[in-house]
Amino acid sequence: MKFLFRNDYSFGAHPKVLEAVCKVNLEGNPGYGDDRYTAMAKDRIREICGCPEAAVEFLIGGTQTNVTACAFLLKPWEAAVCADSGHLNGHEVGAFEATGHKILPVHAGGDGKVSPEMVAPLLKVHQDPHLTKPGLVYISQATENGTVYTKAELTALSEFCRANGLYLFADGARLGAALTSDSNDLTLPEFAHLVDAFYIGGTKNGTMFGEALVIPDPALAKDFFRMKKRMGAVMEKGWIQGVMFLSLFEDDLYFKMARHANEMAARLQNGLKALGWQLWVESPTNQVFAVVHNSRKAGLDEVCQYEDWCSYDETHTVIRFVTCFQTSREEVDGLLSALGASR
Amino acid sequence: MKFLFRNDYSFGAHPKVLEAVCKVNLEGNPGYGDDRYTAMAKDRIREICGCPEAAVEFLIGGTQTNVTACAFLLKPWEAAVCADSGHLNGHEVGAFEATGHKILPVHAGGDGKVSPEMVAPLLKVHQDPHLTKPGLVYISQATENGTVYTKAELTALSEFCRANGLYLFADGARLGAALTSDSNDLTLPEFAHLVDAFYIGGTKNGTMFGEALVIPDPALAKDFFRMKKRMGAVMEKGWIQGVMFLSLFEDDLYFKMARHANEMAARLQNGLKALGWQLWVESPTNQVFAVVHNSRKAGLDEVCQYEDWCSYDETHTVIRFVTCFQTSREEVDGLLSALGASR
Amino acid sequence: MKFLFRNDYSFGAHPKVLEAVCKVNLEGNPGYGDDRYTAMAKDRIREICGCPEAAVEFLIGGTQTNVTACAFLLKPWEAAVCADSGHLNGHEVGAFEATGHKILPVHAGGDGKVSPEMVAPLLKVHQDPHLTKPGLVYISQATENGTVYTKAELTALSEFCRANGLYLFADGARLGAALTSDSNDLTLPEFAHLVDAFYIGGTKNGTMFGEALVIPDPALAKDFFRMKKRMGAVMEKGWIQGVMFLSLFEDDLYFKMARHANEMAARLQNGLKALGWQLWVESPTNQVFAVVHNSRKAGLDEVCQYEDWCSYDETHTVIRFVTCFQTSREEVDGLLSALGASR
Amino acid sequence: MKFLFRNDYSFGAHPKVLEAVCKVNLEGNPGYGDDRYTAMAKDRIREICGCPEAAVEFLIGGTQTNVTACAFLLKPWEAAVCADSGHLNGHEVGAFEATGHKILPVHAGGDGKVSPEMVAPLLKVHQDPHLTKPGLVYISQATENGTVYTKAELTALSEFCRANGLYLFADGARLGAALTSDSNDLTLPEFAHLVDAFYIGGTKNGTMFGEALVIPDPALAKDFFRMKKRMGAVMEKGWIQGVMFLSLFEDDLYFKMARHANEMAARLQNGLKALGWQLWVESPTNQVFAVVHNSRKAGLDEVCQYEDWCSYDETHTVIRFVTCFQTSREEVDGLLSALGASR
Repeated sequence: MKFLFRNDYSFGAHPKVLEAVCKVNLEGNPGYGDDRYTAMAKDRIREICGCPEAAVEFLIGGTQTNVTACAFLLKPWEAAVCADSGHLNGHEVGAFEATGHKILPVHAGGDGKVSPEMVAPLLKVHQDPHLTKPGLVYISQATENGTVYTKAELTALSEFCRANGLYLFADGARLGAALTSDSNDLTLPEFAHLVDAFYIGGTKNGTMFGEALVIPDPALAKDFFRMKKRMGAVMEKGWIQGVMFLSLFEDDLYFKMARHANEMAARLQNGLKALGWQLWVESPTNQVFAVVHNSRKAGLDEVCQYEDWCSYDETHTVIRFVTCFQTSREEVDGLLSALGASR
Repeated sequence: MKFLFRNDYSFGAHPKVLEAVCKVNLEGNPGYGDDRYTAMAKDRIREICGCPEAAVEFLIGGTQTNVTACAFLLKPWEAAVCADSGHLNGHEVGAFEATGHKILPVHAGGDGKVSPEMVAPLLKVHQDPHLTKPGLVYISQATENGTVYTKAELTALSEFCRANGLYLFADGARLGAALTSDSNDLTLPEFAHLVDAFYIGGTKNGTMFGEALVIPDPALAKDFFRMKKRMGAVMEKGWIQGVMFLSLFEDDLYFKMARHANEMAARLQNGLKALGWQLWVESPTNQVFAVVHNSRKAGLDEVCQYEDWCSYDETHTVIRFVTCFQTSREEVDGLLSALGASR
Repeated sequence: MKFLFRNDYSFGAHPKVLEAVCKVNLEGNPGYGDDRYTAMAKDRIREICGCPEAAVEFLIGGTQTNVTACAFLLKPWEAAVCADSGHLNGHEVGAFEATGHKILPVHAGGDGKVSPEMVAPLLKVHQDPHLTKPGLVYISQATENGTVYTKAELTALSEFCRANGLYLFADGARLGAALTSDSNDLTLPEFAHLVDAFYIGGTKNGTMFGEALVIPDPALAKDFFRMKKRMGAVMEKGWIQGVMFLSLFEDDLYFKMARHANEMAARLQNGLKALGWQLWVESPTNQVFAVVHNSRKAGLDEVCQYEDWCSYDETHTVIRFVTCFQTSREEVDGLLSALGASR
Repeated sequence: MKFLFRNDYSFGAHPKVLEAVCKVNLEGNPGYGDDRYTAMAKDRIREICGCPEAAVEFLIGGTQTNVTACAFLLKPWEAAVCADSGHLNGHEVGAFEATGHKILPVHAGGDGKVSPEMVAPLLKVHQDPHLTKPGLVYISQATENGTVYTKAELTALSEFCRANGLYLFADGARLGAALTSDSNDLTLPEFAHLVDAFYIGGTKNGTMFGEALVIPDPALAKDFFRMKKRMGAVMEKGWIQGVMFLSLFEDDLYFKMARHANEMAARLQNGLKALGWQLWVESPTNQVFAVVHNSRKAGLDEVCQYEDWCSYDETHTVIRFVTCFQTSREEVDGLLSALGASR
């Protein structure tokens, strides 16, 4: 039996979340999100975000949410600015371009973060009306590389965007991990007020599926439901999303799970360092990136599941370990001891 | 407490289906459908369809499946021919047009069926290269109006399509209801071999969500996964779909549920007739359509949930009652007796 | 030698227009419409439209202009309302749907006109957020059937659209024919102020190609150039468009040509009636529609070029004759006498 | 009066081309390319390309032709591989992405050429079905940077593409300049057989507008006309394109013009070198790229029109001079002497 560190969507829902779904299963509820659980979940999300007027919409998965929200915000001739390492750019089979928009990648360094300094030159070049018009900046919190925007960084980016007529959209697939990270100095309401739209990821933190898109300014969200339907993103049995998100925010379950995953990742990361492993980046969230010699990968495959992230050099690969609500201290220690033994 | 006859997606999963999901919840499985349950479910579907080579792909909802499959089959300048009452045309917020394709509606009568005679004149007109090229015919089995294509009808349409270079796609949101209808004379394998692609609807017959797209000729399905991903239709925790569909086809659960729903609908339809109600169409499946005087609707609202279907004339409305696996004989009789009392 | 009445784009440019193009041919001018002729032509168009602030943009052909302008005005989930006989719906290979928008056809009668009464019920149905949102009404002036909206009709439609949040777009491929028709009671400035965007068609009235899109409110036209470029609709040698449109509006050439075409059409239409022909509609512009027995078509083919318009009944066809700036009185009389002789 | 070296579309048509258009202006011809001139021009192009079966289609401009042809060749989930400096990527306002496809840029060096070595690693990564599938390679001949693929280079790329299931598309906006360059060792038929589709650019070499798309294998071109119409790219008065292209290939006019432009560019390039200017690349075609100190640009603006190409470093800019059929030896010498004087 191998240790499972490949990703944070290898397990189903947290037992409390699943229990909530089972409880209402045969109750009989209106479809398409017109049920009371969805209404309650939306209220609860508005409350924890400190955005009493926000539009909240549930979608099914991350790619779908990114693409639907960004295409909703843009005019046809506008483009999304995105880190070259961003999920929207690299990992979504052109799902965003399928909506007719170009991505303008900026080169983000090893921390995967976008800064005003990266975007400014691009804005200047794109004043030329023969080029697409940058219409929004897409970021992830936490980033693809496990890092977290600080309050200062996000404030600077937010102000830059607002001064330049750009929307700021945040992919929150791992928002829980970001907000409970030791590196974090942002509250959820602070975060919510700095961006124009973001989502609270369920799939990677305790639900079977489902992402909660939040658009703090409801005027900006006008007709979003039609866009969601047009993108095939409306669930018929929408109350399942509502019930899952309600249970996520009962007793802080969402944040407890995320904090636990971060702790397990830190334990793993520290353990790897103690074993002399080289880290690719120092990650404060639930993804751990290590550089391994290619000759060691076969042995690794024997003891655990992980993900090949990218090539490091001709003889080394960056690999990724991910933890989640289900990862136990015993598994982390078991993996570390197996890795120690195999040296 | 009102009787719930509004639609067949008011309840969650059949208890056996939900139980199967709960059982594997914390097992740890690969994502994106690369798990053994999904593999087993695909095999099982190939088996019951009599298509050992078929490509089987799970998607999340009906609109998404229709749009993804039809856009996959067409070239950019090709159009889908569809009954004017078809779901693709009327009820999907232009989700299909969002992929860049035109719908060419044909006027289907009260039974909602498309025939070669309806399509032939359109083909003739569209030989003109200044017009879109008809590329596929979209039908539903059962139709939007609750009727069922007979073997003779479907064979004629299939032969017509094949002779004219058109794909034949069947929306099977209610395929279970069709195949277990008293009006049906088609086996699932016969059905599968007459069309080029179809889906077995889960959402409307016992799952929380999920549709199984079947493309009998695997060569036609080449690269479908990339199209699915591009459309935001790939579930991260794909095994949940696999597990649900596996349990659907254990002990014929799928067909038992559908037959039960049909029986409840027949009981309701007969009861309404006995009460002197006028039917809009005589439906052999799980949707019952009745014509009611508008003055009676307020009273109806008191006793049950149903759907306004369309206007019949200035003083009457067509309404729809739908049954499902969860509908009980007691509820049907209770509704009928409430309706009888309220006359 | 046959008489040419097939359409109004069988001849090149009016000699004065072509002469103007030749004159500047080797002058050396900036590309993409950044030249002084284009600037002057825009000013002249603003002047004759009585819209001193209007945005004016040159595009190349009718389909391109319709599609670019309508897609520019709509949000992704919005649809264009259009007469079922409208050019946007029937004759453009799904070019509009290719931009991701649905067309909602309304049944216009033999005069091809859209009225508030036709659109209102559709608006009511489409309040349902599960359906596309009507975003604009597309009309043609003159219509596909040769008729002309009166001031009263257009005012009613305009007021209806403004009261209901719909843009009103007018395809002006034959705007010259409309404005110089005996049926017309609208000035160009009146027309311009009743719609949100329209184009002055060059191709069908004296240029080699080119349509002048006018958006009276410049705020509505923001970023249109980027949209035009995105649609592949920007000419490199844009001054050719500018020069042609400048010469169109010198000495009223545009209106003189259109009036001449209308006069020739009226002469033809009256002549046909005198010969006992049945008209399909009484046309006040440069298109003449007649009903002919199918057995007479071979004979007709001998003497002239015309267009099959649609089937009238099993034994008759509606055919169309079109006149243009180049049609002479001798040709009309020659055709009529040939038709008289062949009876 | 300044010297005009800004681009090769500053002048209209070559006098012989314009004369041909004038000659047929009032002749009366069928629309949409169904005329005899278009047929003859297509035959002539098939002949000079040595592709007797090729499909030849006329389009209006470069962006339109690139986008229409590439979108025609690709399936929805496929992407175009393109040099990062390629026109499709940088200069077309997302016109290609507007068709729903992603561009996969490869880093081409200063010569702007794509090689198999650049594409191979990308193919390897994109075997992953979670990523877009590379479907074609887009190149320009001559490149954006004025260079020319040699026979050896193009053969290697062609063989690589064919071995890997990729189409090879060549943007031939400046194909004339390439084929008449001193660096060229390819005949037009050799070139045509190495690519799957390409266009012969008219706009930048002697016509008012118009590009001739050639698809050597007619089976690959099936239904292209419908795609062209769908993209708004069909000219109503299509014979104008036919007439212009007929005259281009009479007496080798096309190649004579291109050779002249190249000679003028070489004269200018040599002259600049003699004046001590630094070239950015050594160009063998009609574009000349020089590096100038920013402080000299104001002076340059006084004497000539040119284009800012890109930033070279903080104090220098790369600028571009372009020659065409109309550029005279006197102008080149005049410019050089003005530049010499202003040192």
